[in-house]
Amino acid sequence: MEKTQKLKKLLVVGVGLIGGSCALALKRAGAVREVVGVGRTRANLDTAVERGVVDRALTLDAPWGTEVRDADVVLVAAPVAQFPALFATIAANLGPRTCVTDAGSTKQDVVAAAREAFGASLPAFVPGHPIAGTEHSGAAAAFPSLFDNRGVVLTPVAQTAPDAVARVKGMWESCGARVSTLAPDRHDAIFAAVSHLPHVLAFTLVAELAARPDAATYFDNAAGGFRDFTRIAASSPEMWRDIALANRDALLTEIDGYADALAAARALIAAGDAGAIAELFEQASHARRAWEARRPK
Amino acid sequence: MEKTQKLKKLLVVGVGLIGGSCALALKRAGAVREVVGVGRTRANLDTAVERGVVDRALTLDAPWGTEVRDADVVLVAAPVAQFPALFATIAANLGPRTCVTDAGSTKQDVVAAAREAFGASLPAFVPGHPIAGTEHSGAAAAFPSLFDNRGVVLTPVAQTAPDAVARVKGMWESCGARVSTLAPDRHDAIFAAVSHLPHVLAFTLVAELAARPDAATYFDNAAGGFRDFTRIAASSPEMWRDIALANRDALLTEIDGYADALAAARALIAAGDAGAIAELFEQASHARRAWEARRPK
Repeated sequence: MEKTQKLKKLLVVGVGLIGGSCALALKRAGAVREVVGVGRTRANLDTAVERGVVDRALTLDAPWGTEVRDADVVLVAAPVAQFPALFATIAANLGPRTCVTDAGSTKQDVVAAAREAFGASLPAFVPGHPIAGTEHSGAAAAFPSLFDNRGVVLTPVAQTAPDAVARVKGMWESCGARVSTLAPDRHDAIFAAVSHLPHVLAFTLVAELAARPDAATYFDNAAGGFRDFTRIAASSPEMWRDIALANRDALLTEIDGYADALAAARALIAAGDAGAIAELFEQASHARRAWEARRPK
Repeated sequence: MEKTQKLKKLLVVGVGLIGGSCALALKRAGAVREVVGVGRTRANLDTAVERGVVDRALTLDAPWGTEVRDADVVLVAAPVAQFPALFATIAANLGPRTCVTDAGSTKQDVVAAAREAFGASLPAFVPGHPIAGTEHSGAAAAFPSLFDNRGVVLTPVAQTAPDAVARVKGMWESCGARVSTLAPDRHDAIFAAVSHLPHVLAFTLVAELAARPDAATYFDNAAGGFRDFTRIAASSPEMWRDIALANRDALLTEIDGYADALAAARALIAAGDAGAIAELFEQASHARRAWEARRPK
């Protein structure tokens, strides 16, 4: 197997932070010959062309389906709510060696949409989730090192073609990412816990504070710990609404488990149980430090 | 009133990150002639002397009370649990113009301890809370710019002498800080919401994840959002145990209010109410972005 595959053509549907950064990372690695972008607004696509993120670009109202057939990889990096319509166009135009992947934050819903749209071509679809991002969006925010040492989780199903998985894995590795594999339901359960729940917790905290009549006094006294804890509460409300709904069952399970854990912590504090409080905080502090030490920089 | 007061002598009891950085900031500003440090361990004090944080240093088992009388300001920046004993020694040695302040994260308990120890000398005590810190501790971690543009909250009571407040305010302003004033109970209510609650939430999340049999799989998939959200869960378990207990009533009120808010958010998600979920997240995102934009850099 060759060390770095070279894609003849990558079609990026949704040239935002993720799709654009993938294109730039592949260009940096010399791992793609041509990148074509498809998107909703001409202005963002013009930015993408000017910045060299894509070589050519079409809006969604152009007949972009014709660009699918000779693409080695189609990366769907648009909001998940648009996937069914985008998948339908892609499925109708698949070439014999085209494989398709996505960058959605939830996977069971994406797999269901792909089953619906791709039918017998489902083997060509490799569900994926690059675990990277910033608080910025759009082609203007894309940069080639976004995925360096970051994780990408692929969630192939029984029908997914091994050679399609290999090609998508190779693409992300060319971007500098570490690729792992999970079953779709396992993916959604894990990300409900380590990503979706924290977002709901942070959104809830900030919204609750902001609704107080004397909110300004609270915010004026908030400092560095608050800043870090609530950074994700500045995230896109639309994107996170979609994620909360797409992964609703797993997220509700996590919220319930967390509410129980918080009630238990509350009981220790109410009881003034200094030893048990210290033990709880120590378990967290130890685990958090160990995670930070182990984490690729 | 002179623009920058110059202290003849500052006595720092507890030469850690906060006490040491205050000393370095005052030296940077030329706002102190001599700094004497008092602490538990000789090794930390030696570091403080070597780094020029303090000019001289005594351990707590030396007769350090004699250093109090001619100090302009005594800054108590030790763990709050040690305050009663430290206050007793300081109160027994107060000079005619010595004023005393502290750096504790909670204020009603500190005021109660000060009332007990200082008695008729209570006017000389100015309760304070510098809102700054890093995840590091000890004299080795101290640096002069820690308080630049950061807040310091003073919580004087009816008996506190205005000239003592002015001197402590001037000291922190010489350190580069912005000084504000709150009543002790108001301080504790506000910091329960913007600091103590977030710490409990973060400790609870990480401890709950760490207790799962398959914790490693969760941690392996945690990324940047998790990193920021849980950074405060790496904080000192002992310090936060003390804060949770010292500010128990206000903290329990905040935990209960938060649990209600989380239950309300859960209900929206369970009902699939896309509009209300987006509205909640939007309120948070808007408030968080406005706070970040307003915050001194």
